[in-house]
Amino acid sequence: INSKLPNIETSIFAKMSKMAAEHNALNLSQGFPNFPSDPALNALVDEAMREGFNQYAPMPGDFGLRMEISKKIENLHNHFYNPETEITITAGATQAIFTIIATTIIEGDEVIIFTPAYDCYAPTVELFGGKIVPIQLKPPFYAVDWQEVADKISSKTKMIIINSPHNPSGMLFSKDDMLELQDLAEKNDLFVLSDEVYEHIIFDGNVHQSASRFEALTERSFVTASFGKTFHNTGWKMGYCVAPEKLMKEFQKVHQFVVFCVNHPIQKAMATYLKDENHYLKLSDFYQQKRDFFLHLMKGSNFKIIPSKGTYFQMLDFSEISNESDIVFAERLTKELKIATIPTSVFNEGKKDFKQIRVCFAKTDETLSQAAKILQQL
Amino acid sequence: INSKLPNIETSIFAKMSKMAAEHNALNLSQGFPNFPSDPALNALVDEAMREGFNQYAPMPGDFGLRMEISKKIENLHNHFYNPETEITITAGATQAIFTIIATTIIEGDEVIIFTPAYDCYAPTVELFGGKIVPIQLKPPFYAVDWQEVADKISSKTKMIIINSPHNPSGMLFSKDDMLELQDLAEKNDLFVLSDEVYEHIIFDGNVHQSASRFEALTERSFVTASFGKTFHNTGWKMGYCVAPEKLMKEFQKVHQFVVFCVNHPIQKAMATYLKDENHYLKLSDFYQQKRDFFLHLMKGSNFKIIPSKGTYFQMLDFSEISNESDIVFAERLTKELKIATIPTSVFNEGKKDFKQIRVCFAKTDETLSQAAKILQQL
Ligand SMILES: CSCCC(=O)C(=O)O
Ligand SMILES: CSCCC(=O)C(=O)O
Repeated sequence: INSKLPNIETSIFAKMSKMAAEHNALNLSQGFPNFPSDPALNALVDEAMREGFNQYAPMPGDFGLRMEISKKIENLHNHFYNPETEITITAGATQAIFTIIATTIIEGDEVIIFTPAYDCYAPTVELFGGKIVPIQLKPPFYAVDWQEVADKISSKTKMIIINSPHNPSGMLFSKDDMLELQDLAEKNDLFVLSDEVYEHIIFDGNVHQSASRFEALTERSFVTASFGKTFHNTGWKMGYCVAPEKLMKEFQKVHQFVVFCVNHPIQKAMATYLKDENHYLKLSDFYQQKRDFFLHLMKGSNFKIIPSKGTYFQMLDFSEISNESDIVFAERLTKELKIATIPTSVFNEGKKDFKQIRVCFAKTDETLSQAAKILQQL
Repeated sequence: INSKLPNIETSIFAKMSKMAAEHNALNLSQGFPNFPSDPALNALVDEAMREGFNQYAPMPGDFGLRMEISKKIENLHNHFYNPETEITITAGATQAIFTIIATTIIEGDEVIIFTPAYDCYAPTVELFGGKIVPIQLKPPFYAVDWQEVADKISSKTKMIIINSPHNPSGMLFSKDDMLELQDLAEKNDLFVLSDEVYEHIIFDGNVHQSASRFEALTERSFVTASFGKTFHNTGWKMGYCVAPEKLMKEFQKVHQFVVFCVNHPIQKAMATYLKDENHYLKLSDFYQQKRDFFLHLMKGSNFKIIPSKGTYFQMLDFSEISNESDIVFAERLTKELKIATIPTSVFNEGKKDFKQIRVCFAKTDETLSQAAKILQQL
């Protein structure tokens, strides 16, 4: 068999989680909560199974759930997505991202991404014959230079992929960033894939500048989000994609052959659970408390830290602690100090090493205390 | 947006199910049971959620579930798939089929399928630049002429897709069929995609000739199966793929970017449920009773009927009732007689119309009685 992804190995998440287990280390690497999801939500899934929603859902998803998503976005961002034609429920945001790329990218297309970047964009683009054009963002602020973006756009550019709140850096796109993006996308007739899986985890009173807030952007954007990140159940694999009808029609053509439809009882449960907006509006406060608790515990440490502005990740700069590569450093921390983190060079263009490791703070206060105690020794 | 699947419309399943709902018709079109799945299995899912298995499963799937699948196949077909390296849990067999094709097919490859064929193979192959080479099977027996297959193999042929028990015809591949296939696949160095989603629904004492039973075939085959079909919960979207390590390694590279992993609590539940082999070994008897009940009720009708040998589908030949096209006939049945079936010309090469409609008998005896009463009027 000729590999279609010759350069791909096991993902850094699987690798570090495995190493954490082998060395009995605190696992702050792969992004997932170590506290329970809401028992009331579990009960809704159980109820849906007992009520018999165990056969195929409609291909685009349960209509009630699509309506709730439509309402949520209209309330938050003042844009109406038609639940009949502009919303699809997916098996996690990963499946949405895969399907968006499968729908749009053909041989020779160029796709701009901002590195450090989540690890599924590039291989998926390459699987469909596209070429990644990376734009490297730099610590500590990971700001975008929009002139650089303009310079990298060519006649072959088909799409720009953005991700705000940004994993792994915890950076946010501002309203100005989004206006610059909108301007470039319009001028150059580009699609935008907006990965907004951490949409409800935003700190310090900042507002989520969703692509859905910018009318001219919505016309050319696929926006994807994740229930797993918002409701503490990353293992349920449920997310969604919204896009204007013309784009969504093509997305659904592909979606039906990727999975046909997704888990029905969970969709029914989510449709009910989403009706109470507190279930997502309170999430930013919940995680800001965790971030602040962790930052408080880390005071005076030898890591250089710029507080995360969103996501459940915090970058730690270890340049004053060690000049090991971030991979060697992270492996040593896992094996010797029993704490697993993510070395972030793997997400950069040319695996450039800025001496940054990523910590997931979606953890109980007890875990965060243990973690900080270990990290303070360095 | 330039459509990558310009010829694809809404699937016949979605179309007929929708028409059934609109006309308040008995829905024997889309294949799914209208009776409950085992409450004990639902309870296992609930238990897994309450025990906290709500975060990412390992990328290839829960290890316990992979071990149970390995044991099951070894017991039934005497071939050992290593659960560490040769099994992946997927979001239904559809996602497995998509991923197999994504892993193997490149621009210019030819893929042989037998028509009538399930509707996801061809568009997926085309999405990756492959070319479908259809071989038309003919009623009433839908037998394969292996000389015809040999003649259609070219230097560009990369894969043969088989599906036994066969949807929609209810035909089975015999041991001889599989030996012919094995011979051709070896001689021409082809991959085989064996869609075995109805593996546990086989009638009249026949044995399921899984690709896993034929050593030389296993070396070049991806075999996929479906828990939804076997455990009466098509809406849970859970299936699996087995293949030799070299192929599975490439499959998993793609799988991780398609969905990363699949629903964790359901995997935990299935791992427990599969331990009792009665849960799948009794399925053939269960559905044979349904088939026989339905055939009994249809005695003396004007449809010509060859009993299904497997799957939960029965073909009905209406050539002595009407010379309408099967699509017009099926639409009329839905609107006027209030019974929805599947016209099967849509699955044939050039949409050839053999005057066959497909009925799903995964229905309560009451539904089957009502259905037969209507069909007997024709
Ligand atoms: C799919 S495993 C990776 C989880 C995640 O989103 C992350 O850790 O960044
Ligand atoms: C995914 S909807 C189609 C269900 C099915 O397998 C069939 O009806 O053939």
